[in-house]
Amino acid sequence: MSQMLAEIREQPHALERTLSEELKPIEELRRRLEVQRPRLVLLAARGTSDNAAQFGRYLLEITTGIPVSLAAPSIFTLYRSAIHLDGVLVIALSQSGESTDTNYVLERAREQGALTIGVTNEAASTTARIAEHCFLVRAGKEKSVAATKTYTGQLLMLYLLAYALGAPIQLDELARVPALASAALDLESEIAARSERYRFMEHTVVIGRGLNYSNAFEFALKLMETCYVVAERFSSADLLHGPIAMVGQSFPAFLFTPSGVTWPGMRQMLDKLDQIGAESLIVTDRSNSEALGRVTRAITIPVELDEMFTPIPYIIPMQLFAARLAEQKGLNPDQPRTISKVTRTL
Amino acid sequence: MSQMLAEIREQPHALERTLSEELKPIEELRRRLEVQRPRLVLLAARGTSDNAAQFGRYLLEITTGIPVSLAAPSIFTLYRSAIHLDGVLVIALSQSGESTDTNYVLERAREQGALTIGVTNEAASTTARIAEHCFLVRAGKEKSVAATKTYTGQLLMLYLLAYALGAPIQLDELARVPALASAALDLESEIAARSERYRFMEHTVVIGRGLNYSNAFEFALKLMETCYVVAERFSSADLLHGPIAMVGQSFPAFLFTPSGVTWPGMRQMLDKLDQIGAESLIVTDRSNSEALGRVTRAITIPVELDEMFTPIPYIIPMQLFAARLAEQKGLNPDQPRTISKVTRTL
Repeated sequence: MSQMLAEIREQPHALERTLSEELKPIEELRRRLEVQRPRLVLLAARGTSDNAAQFGRYLLEITTGIPVSLAAPSIFTLYRSAIHLDGVLVIALSQSGESTDTNYVLERAREQGALTIGVTNEAASTTARIAEHCFLVRAGKEKSVAATKTYTGQLLMLYLLAYALGAPIQLDELARVPALASAALDLESEIAARSERYRFMEHTVVIGRGLNYSNAFEFALKLMETCYVVAERFSSADLLHGPIAMVGQSFPAFLFTPSGVTWPGMRQMLDKLDQIGAESLIVTDRSNSEALGRVTRAITIPVELDEMFTPIPYIIPMQLFAARLAEQKGLNPDQPRTISKVTRTL
Repeated sequence: MSQMLAEIREQPHALERTLSEELKPIEELRRRLEVQRPRLVLLAARGTSDNAAQFGRYLLEITTGIPVSLAAPSIFTLYRSAIHLDGVLVIALSQSGESTDTNYVLERAREQGALTIGVTNEAASTTARIAEHCFLVRAGKEKSVAATKTYTGQLLMLYLLAYALGAPIQLDELARVPALASAALDLESEIAARSERYRFMEHTVVIGRGLNYSNAFEFALKLMETCYVVAERFSSADLLHGPIAMVGQSFPAFLFTPSGVTWPGMRQMLDKLDQIGAESLIVTDRSNSEALGRVTRAITIPVELDEMFTPIPYIIPMQLFAARLAEQKGLNPDQPRTISKVTRTL
């Protein structure tokens, strides 16, 4: 069994650890933020952590109303610009805590007197040392190059940070997340069987919207890293603004389709893909009966979910899918060609 | 000849019109912004205009130090969140001025008392009507579905808006931009010949960094829209954080490689692509002698350029490339399948 698959299966326990250990420092942060409210949140990250940051962007703006920006690290590292960061909350996410450009942004932010938070899986890392407040994902050492348990751990930390910023998130709803992860893992044998169909898939498009937009990026990244599939990722709105032209007969598409506010746009997208003759596979749950009633291919989390809490249970079957598809393709998902676990870039 | 090709060729004149007509209102805006400095700039757009917004994000942060965020329209349109926009400058970009979600963001911003600016090619459009200040791209009616002259017009307007926000941009340098566009257009016959090699290209990756990151998105979009190529786009740093694994022997890659601060990272990227055996084509100019000395395939703007002013001359040959490649593939770039000029999305 690959390390990646083993780490995917660890997620319910990892999420439980994060919740039980990080809640107390989050409550302390919440008290501080009540009197020191940021005017802007800047999220800095690369790779899978940047996909988690994309989720954070939607979650924080939707639940707190504070504007959020995803940092472009090169503006700090290459152009050496002095962005005005007074009153800004800078959150750096890095699994290893050793992402050089993410840490560079964090250091400049701290020098400028911005409130800084680090989210990392490594307590002894540079990110943990530089950030004023550090929160640990506590996923246990991640050995696979393809990040899985640290991604869902970062999503959970972002729910907790939203709570610290005053978001109306109930802690007992977050307490259910490890059980939802378990429910998603129960789909493994179904997914292993389903992945075989895609043995010779060379390219695809993954579509998500809103809180699941980041999952489109993350599943596409897993497909690129572990299966060498050229995987595009778009929101349904952006795809319709041009790129849809590349989608022809039999083009494979994956869609995250929770019930709720994003469903009408995703339904419109599914209709369009059907007209073209593309082949769609959706990820959904029992609450979206309209989706389940109309599509041929669905991966269904066997519970009813509020859209707000779909991102963690929705990505898990697709992590399994990527790990299993890599096997089908004769690839070792733990050792993708060309890349290494800690990436240092200019 | 396709409409797309005709419109690509109109760019020097279109850019001259924009400069001569919009400079006076820009000077007025500059005086207003001297006393009313925004704490954040929010850019709202879709499609090609969103790629221009991506350029604006880099340009404005680099030259003014004001934090910039690219709006996620669904947070306004679907989640109906009330983002705090006091003290924020909201800039909406829409070629047609009829992009429903961009206009929705603009309307909510104006209701909240934010300073609003519209950038559009259509004086009688909804965007022009809603925005407090409207700037016209003045590219002339754009008939081709694939936007070209309005993209470079939007980039030019963003230089002017950076100037209005106090950026140290010399107006006489902007006055040279139409001539740079002409120099780029002179490459057309070379590019027509060069495009033939890519007749059967089915997927690719386009790589840019910093001020040319948006060009990677825009060239990839043109390839998806007009040539039905599955075109990925990444910064060199993001590509190395995982997706590079999908790139194997003979994988085609396009890179924007100006001289200046982004060159060391792009050189590292080119070395990696060479090691893998991928096939790279770079877009550069005479100032990057190191790039010209090391690569086999280059499209070279025949002048020496400061990186700050490379984005407009660098995208023009790649617009030509997409239009010519579409012809090689037997496709009509003016009528891409599935899409229409004005896109209305849920």
